Amino acid sequence: MQTRLTEMLGIEHPILSAPMGVAAGGKLAAAVSAAGGLGLIGGGYGDAAWLEREFAAAGTARVGCGFITWSLAQKPQLLDLVLAQTPVAVMLSFGELAPFAPRIKAAGARLMCQVQTLALAREAVAAGADVIVAQGAEAGGHGLARATFTLVPEIADYLAGAAPDTVLVAAGGVADGRGLAAALMLGADGVLVGTRFWASSEALVAPSLQAAAVAADGDSTVRTTVPDVARRYHWPGSFTARAIRSRFVDDWHGRESVLAEPGTLEREEARYWQGFHAGDPDNTCMLAGEAVGLMHDVAPAGDIVQRMTREAQALLARAAGTRARVA
Amino acid sequence: MQTRLTEMLGIEHPILSAPMGVAAGGKLAAAVSAAGGLGLIGGGYGDAAWLEREFAAAGTARVGCGFITWSLAQKPQLLDLVLAQTPVAVMLSFGELAPFAPRIKAAGARLMCQVQTLALAREAVAAGADVIVAQGAEAGGHGLARATFTLVPEIADYLAGAAPDTVLVAAGGVADGRGLAAALMLGADGVLVGTRFWASSEALVAPSLQAAAVAADGDSTVRTTVPDVARRYHWPGSFTARAIRSRFVDDWHGRESVLAEPGTLEREEARYWQGFHAGDPDNTCMLAGEAVGLMHDVAPAGDIVQRMTREAQALLARAAGTRARVA
Repeated sequence: MQTRLTEMLGIEHPILSAPMGVAAGGKLAAAVSAAGGLGLIGGGYGDAAWLEREFAAAGTARVGCGFITWSLAQKPQLLDLVLAQTPVAVMLSFGELAPFAPRIKAAGARLMCQVQTLALAREAVAAGADVIVAQGAEAGGHGLARATFTLVPEIADYLAGAAPDTVLVAAGGVADGRGLAAALMLGADGVLVGTRFWASSEALVAPSLQAAAVAADGDSTVRTTVPDVARRYHWPGSFTARAIRSRFVDDWHGRESVLAEPGTLEREEARYWQGFHAGDPDNTCMLAGEAVGLMHDVAPAGDIVQRMTREAQALLARAAGTRARVA
Repeated sequence: MQTRLTEMLGIEHPILSAPMGVAAGGKLAAAVSAAGGLGLIGGGYGDAAWLEREFAAAGTARVGCGFITWSLAQKPQLLDLVLAQTPVAVMLSFGELAPFAPRIKAAGARLMCQVQTLALAREAVAAGADVIVAQGAEAGGHGLARATFTLVPEIADYLAGAAPDTVLVAAGGVADGRGLAAALMLGADGVLVGTRFWASSEALVAPSLQAAAVAADGDSTVRTTVPDVARRYHWPGSFTARAIRSRFVDDWHGRESVLAEPGTLEREEARYWQGFHAGDPDNTCMLAGEAVGLMHDVAPAGDIVQRMTREAQALLARAAGTRARVA
């Protein structure tokens, strides 16, 4: 399944795994790459020992890495650590690009910039992005408000005029072959997939949390600042995170100022991490997207890549027949 | 371009125009139907004289009609008025279906139910919906929070098991052939299009407001309760409306409780309607979706239908070739 994305990155299928902090380690990234996509290790909030371990876990696989840009700015030496691993691509999300973009390109890695608005796409082009990831708010984890369905074609139109060689990837809500086929129709050259790989065998996620996500439907997620308040992560601007409505989220969503009060915060911060490490879905947050309603098992990442590709190809082949009916 | 939707409704292309209150009169509905889609007259907040005039304006065209269900409950006689016009379909959105669904079906019209969540899709199936319109929050006007990109395939999966004869339509963010093709890939049998037809020659919208919408990009809309507070429309539950960030919206978004104060409300209500009737984009609200960023002209509705169909067919045909690249 060749597109401009597969050509640029030298891969077989236009499917990238999202660099989900903590969850997307080297084993997941390597499995996605081995199946013909490209796996991205999650730089998260920045932990040198974790990054070194996970690049080692990826072995000789061709992988990339993604950073939370405002967090990277506090530990800029992590970029050198990652570039020394000769990643295929480095993705920057949520922050100023100028301090890092030139070094990434000079090191020979592809510069991927994740954006949530047309205005941010303009900034990414100005920074020299090779790949723009247009992320809709249906995505799990952090993001803004616009939807994949309109953001992708609008940025495609913009790039056609302003930067026709820049490749476009759709993110947010893509969990199966239908999403891949739809993203291609909307003008994307490929997809970046988070939630579906969060529930893969190789993800660094407790099986009990994955089971809770697989059981949830798409109505049960919400954009919230609860996980950031509880973890004392100071996100800039108006970023929120999409999470499954666990008991923890429901206890505090809409009551964030109470959660932040002294005493309460210490208690709930401890509850969050205890629940996280124990894999207790009631007492932590699961950062997952609306696509939880589209996944029904925990599967090996390679199987997920193969299923998505096969399903998308079948849909596209059928749709082009004499009749447009695809259902 | 045949699908289960075209078969059920006896139309040529799987494109419906949304029953936008005030904007979607008989001329627009008739133009969409004449071009091979199905036009829906907007029942809005319920005005018998307006409805009679607009059904007359549709002439002999086969059209349908849509209601704001909670508002219809306050003026239930309007349903008789509309059913006497033998509409092809009646669409119910935003409210309890049971009081109206049986009469619509008994009158021989197709029952269309617009839903914003999987839970509401279950209610629509229980009410006997012939067509479910899955509306994402990128849509203009009223809605909830879920996105088209995940809502459509999740409801498609649900219907495949629970009500395989129920036809599925995607709404929210669809403004061109890319959106139509993507909606079909996601499992829809067709699309319902609002914003793009709001900016058509036949819509009952001031040209200066249409020009402002055409000039706006998709970043410039927001979900808000400002237009409802200003107009004293008491929407139930957590419905909000997507509007373009005009000066009026920016003056009051986030300050709705101040807007509702005595004195202020009277003044701003008058400002809203004066701006609306004068076509002054700074001093009223324009209920339009993220798809404003995908439209670049005001065009006859028939041309919009033809463009969407041609573009979608070309995309689908190209995608099925040996290479998936469609951009």
